[in-house]
Amino acid sequence: MKNLAQLLFALFTLSSLAQDTIHLKSQVRHSIEELRDFVSIPNDALDHADINLNLNWLTKKFNARGFNSTILPTEGESLFFAALPMDDAKPTILFYMHFDGQSVDPAKWDQPNPYEVVLKSKDGDGWKKEAFEDLNENIDYDWRLFGRSTSDDKGPIIMFLNAVDLLQKEGVEIPFNIKVILDSEEEKSSKPLPKAVKEYRELLEADFLIINDGPVHVSEKPTVVYGCRGITTLSLTTYGPINPQHSGHYGNYAPNPGFQLAQVLASMKDTSGKVLIDGYYDGISIDEATMQVLKSVPDHAETINENLAVKTPEKVGGFYQEALQYPSLNIRGLGSGWIGEKSRTIVPESATAELDLRLVPETDGTRLKNLVKKHIAQQGFYILDSVPDKDLRMMHDKIMTVKEGSVTDAFRTDLDNTYGNFLVNTLKKKFGEDVVQVRIMGGTVPIAPFINELKIPAFIVPMVNPDNNQHSPNENLKIGQIAYGIQVFYGILSSSL
Amino acid sequence: MKNLAQLLFALFTLSSLAQDTIHLKSQVRHSIEELRDFVSIPNDALDHADINLNLNWLTKKFNARGFNSTILPTEGESLFFAALPMDDAKPTILFYMHFDGQSVDPAKWDQPNPYEVVLKSKDGDGWKKEAFEDLNENIDYDWRLFGRSTSDDKGPIIMFLNAVDLLQKEGVEIPFNIKVILDSEEEKSSKPLPKAVKEYRELLEADFLIINDGPVHVSEKPTVVYGCRGITTLSLTTYGPINPQHSGHYGNYAPNPGFQLAQVLASMKDTSGKVLIDGYYDGISIDEATMQVLKSVPDHAETINENLAVKTPEKVGGFYQEALQYPSLNIRGLGSGWIGEKSRTIVPESATAELDLRLVPETDGTRLKNLVKKHIAQQGFYILDSVPDKDLRMMHDKIMTVKEGSVTDAFRTDLDNTYGNFLVNTLKKKFGEDVVQVRIMGGTVPIAPFINELKIPAFIVPMVNPDNNQHSPNENLKIGQIAYGIQVFYGILSSSL
Repeated sequence: MKNLAQLLFALFTLSSLAQDTIHLKSQVRHSIEELRDFVSIPNDALDHADINLNLNWLTKKFNARGFNSTILPTEGESLFFAALPMDDAKPTILFYMHFDGQSVDPAKWDQPNPYEVVLKSKDGDGWKKEAFEDLNENIDYDWRLFGRSTSDDKGPIIMFLNAVDLLQKEGVEIPFNIKVILDSEEEKSSKPLPKAVKEYRELLEADFLIINDGPVHVSEKPTVVYGCRGITTLSLTTYGPINPQHSGHYGNYAPNPGFQLAQVLASMKDTSGKVLIDGYYDGISIDEATMQVLKSVPDHAETINENLAVKTPEKVGGFYQEALQYPSLNIRGLGSGWIGEKSRTIVPESATAELDLRLVPETDGTRLKNLVKKHIAQQGFYILDSVPDKDLRMMHDKIMTVKEGSVTDAFRTDLDNTYGNFLVNTLKKKFGEDVVQVRIMGGTVPIAPFINELKIPAFIVPMVNPDNNQHSPNENLKIGQIAYGIQVFYGILSSSL
Repeated sequence: MKNLAQLLFALFTLSSLAQDTIHLKSQVRHSIEELRDFVSIPNDALDHADINLNLNWLTKKFNARGFNSTILPTEGESLFFAALPMDDAKPTILFYMHFDGQSVDPAKWDQPNPYEVVLKSKDGDGWKKEAFEDLNENIDYDWRLFGRSTSDDKGPIIMFLNAVDLLQKEGVEIPFNIKVILDSEEEKSSKPLPKAVKEYRELLEADFLIINDGPVHVSEKPTVVYGCRGITTLSLTTYGPINPQHSGHYGNYAPNPGFQLAQVLASMKDTSGKVLIDGYYDGISIDEATMQVLKSVPDHAETINENLAVKTPEKVGGFYQEALQYPSLNIRGLGSGWIGEKSRTIVPESATAELDLRLVPETDGTRLKNLVKKHIAQQGFYILDSVPDKDLRMMHDKIMTVKEGSVTDAFRTDLDNTYGNFLVNTLKKKFGEDVVQVRIMGGTVPIAPFINELKIPAFIVPMVNPDNNQHSPNENLKIGQIAYGIQVFYGILSSSL
C-alpha cells in the first residue's frame, strides 16, 4: 500500500510538472510572437514618433491584462506607468524596465532589418536561420531571437506581461501591489528621470524597487544584483595642421594629431589595463567578508574568456567580480582622417578618442573627470571645451578639446536586506539551486534618482543571456531565457514576503 | 638723339610688354574655361567609365593642337600619350603629368559638387564666391578656382596646352621634340606604370624627363626640384573581444584594442616627432655642401607655420628642407567603434591605424616596413596579415594584423646636371629672379619606373600654389599660378639647350 501511495504521488507530481511545462512552453510561444510585434516598432529615442508608437503598444498590452496605465510627460520623452488595482494591506513592488533601444547601423548586422526579429540556431561557429513555424512542433531553448532590444530591454517587458498572463490563467492571487515604470530614454542616460521621479513621487511610492535589465550571471544561474556601476563620458580631440595636409609635403613637419592622442592615451594605462592616473582608484577598499561574497560568484574565467576570445583579461582586479568594484576607463571610439578603402595620404587636422568611465559608489563621476583632465594637463596639453581658433593654435604646442558627458551615479544596496533575502529565497525555491548574488554589476541602470528620492532598497533581477551582444550589432535573446524570465516573475508575484 | 632713341626703345619695350600681358591674360581666361570643362569630368580612378571620358577629352584637346595622340592600354587604366611631329635633329623632352584625382567626400567640401569649379576671393579668414563673368573685366591673380584636381594635376595639363596655343599663335618654333605621357592612376600609386614603361619604352625614349606635379616652393618663386620622396603604407589593427561588448559588463576586463594601439603607436615616436624605431634613419648623412643647398631655399618658417596654424613643427630636421631628407612616419587615419553623435558604450572589437611612410633614396620601403614590423613584434605583438581567428586570439595576448601597401621608390637627380642647369637658367631669365632649387620634395610622383627603365635625368617643375589643399577637401588653384605655368612651359619650349 505504501508503495502504491508513493507511486500515485509520484505520478501526480510528474503529471503536474508535465502540465506546468506545457503551460510554460505555450506561454513562451506567445511571448515570442508578442516580442516580434514589439521589436518591429523601432525604438531609437532620437525619434519621437517611434517612441509614441511604443507607448501606444504598451498601453494596449498592459490594459489588456487589467492594469491601469498612464503616460507621464517629462522634459524629454514620456514615461510609461502601469499599476494593478491597489490594496493598502499589501506591500508594494515597483518594477523598472525600459523600452527604448540603442541606435542601429543595419550595415553591421547579419540581417537586413534589426527591427525584424530573425530566429537562428547555432551552426558551428556561426548561426543558421530557422523558420518560426518550426517552433510550433517543438521549442528549442538554445535557439535565439536576433533583433534590436530583444534583450535590452523589450524582452523582459514581454516576460513580465506573460508571467501575469500565467498567474491570471491559474487564478493565483498576487500578494503585492504592483507598479511598473518603463523608461523611454535609458539608452540616452535617462536625462529626464531625476526631475520626473521628483514630480511623480507619490505615484511611484513603493516598499522596494526591482530593475529588470542586463544579463544574468555568465553561469546562467538565477541572479540577484545589489548595485550597478554608474557612467560618465569624455570626448578628447587633439589637433594637427588647421586643415588636413598632403602627407608628402608636410609629413614629419606638421605635428600629427594621431601620435599626440596615442601618447596621451598610452600614458593613462599600463599594459595590464590598470589606470595610471593619480587618485583614480582612491577610496576603494574591499574587506575580507566582501571578498568572500565576490569569490562566491561562480564565475568561470575560462568561459568568460572563451566567449570574449581573449587569452588574458585586464588586471584591474584579480578576477572578474573584483574588477567590477573599480571604475573603468574605456576607449569606446577612435577617429582621425579615414581608414580602410577611404584612406588618403594626409596629415589629418584632428584625432578624437571617445572614452566612457564606469563609476562605483566610491568614485564620483565629476571627481574622476577632473582627475583625467588634470592628467592630460600634466602631459603638457592646453585644455579647452571647444575647437581652438587659429590664434590659440599658434600659442600652444599641444591643445586638447575635452567635452564632458553627464554623470549617472553608481548605487549599491546592502547585501543583508529583508527584500534582498526574499528575492534570493524565492528564486532558490523556484529553481532549486543556489542564487548568484552580485554585489555590483558592471553596467549602468539609471536607478540613482529612484533611490535618492524614494529612499527604498533596490535590486536588479536580470533576465537575459550574458552573450546577448547588448548595444552592438546582432543583439539577441536565447529562447530559454524567456522561459526563465516568466518563471522568475511568476515566482516573485506568487510568493509572500 | 641718344635720348630720343632710348625713349623710343623704352616705349617699344613697354608696348611689347603690355602686348605680352594682354596675350597672357587672354590665354589665362581661356585656360580657366578649359579647366572648368576638364574638372567637370569626374576623375576618381576607381571609376573606369570616368577615366575613359577624360581620355576622350584629352584626345580631342591635344589633337586640336597638332599632337598625334594615342591611348596606351595597361594592366589597369589606360595611359594617354601625345607627341608633336618629330625631328631627329632635336633633343627630346618627355613631360609627365596625371589626370586622375583623389576620391572626394562632398560633405566635407564648402561647395556642393567638387567637380564643378567655384571661383572665390579671400574674405577675411574665409572665402567669398565670385562670378566667372567678372573675369572678363579684369583678372585678379589672387582669386582661386576650387574643385578636385584644379591643382593636382589637371591644372598643369591645361597650362601646358595653353602655352602651346601661345607659341603657335606667335609662330615660335619649338627647339625640342615634345612627348607627353599622362597617368590615369597616379593617386592609386600608378601600379600599372612600371610594366607599361617597359612595354612602351621606345615610344617614351627622351633625353630628359620633366614632371609637372605638386606645388612650387612656399615662397611662390620659380622652382626646380631634383627628386621626390617615395611612399609605402602600413595598416595596423589590434583586437579586443571577438565581438564588441557592453562597456559596463566588460569595461576593465576585456582588453581594449584602442589602448593597445595607442601604446604601440606612442612607442614609435618621441614627443618631438622623431621616430624611435631602431635603424629608421640609417644611411642618411648630409654633408656640408648639401646642407648649404638646403639652406639656400628661401623658406620662411613663420609663413609655413602660420599657414598650418602650428606653433612648433616636428623636430626630425632642424628646418623644413632638412626634415624632407628623412623618411616620415605619418598616422593618416585612426578608427575604432564610433565617434561623435554615433558613439556607443562598447568595448570595440578592433582598432585600426593607417600609416604612410614617405621614403628617401637611402631608405628602401621594404626595409622600413620590416623595421616597423620588428618594432611591433618587440612590443610583444603576434603579427599576421589577416584577421585572427578565435584559436589564435586565445593563444596570444597581443595580436596585430599588419597589411603592407606597395612601395613607390624615391628618386634624386644630381644637383649639377646639364638639363637641370638649362631649366634653372630658363626660369631665371623668364622671371628675372633666383630659382629655388629643391634637392628632394616631400610628396611622391611615381617617377622611378621611368628613371630605372629610360635611364634619363628627371626634374620636377611644379606649377601650383603651395596652399592648394591637395588631396583634401577644398582643393584649389590660384589664378596667378595659371599665368605662371603658361610662362614656364612657354619659356622651356622656346629656349635652346
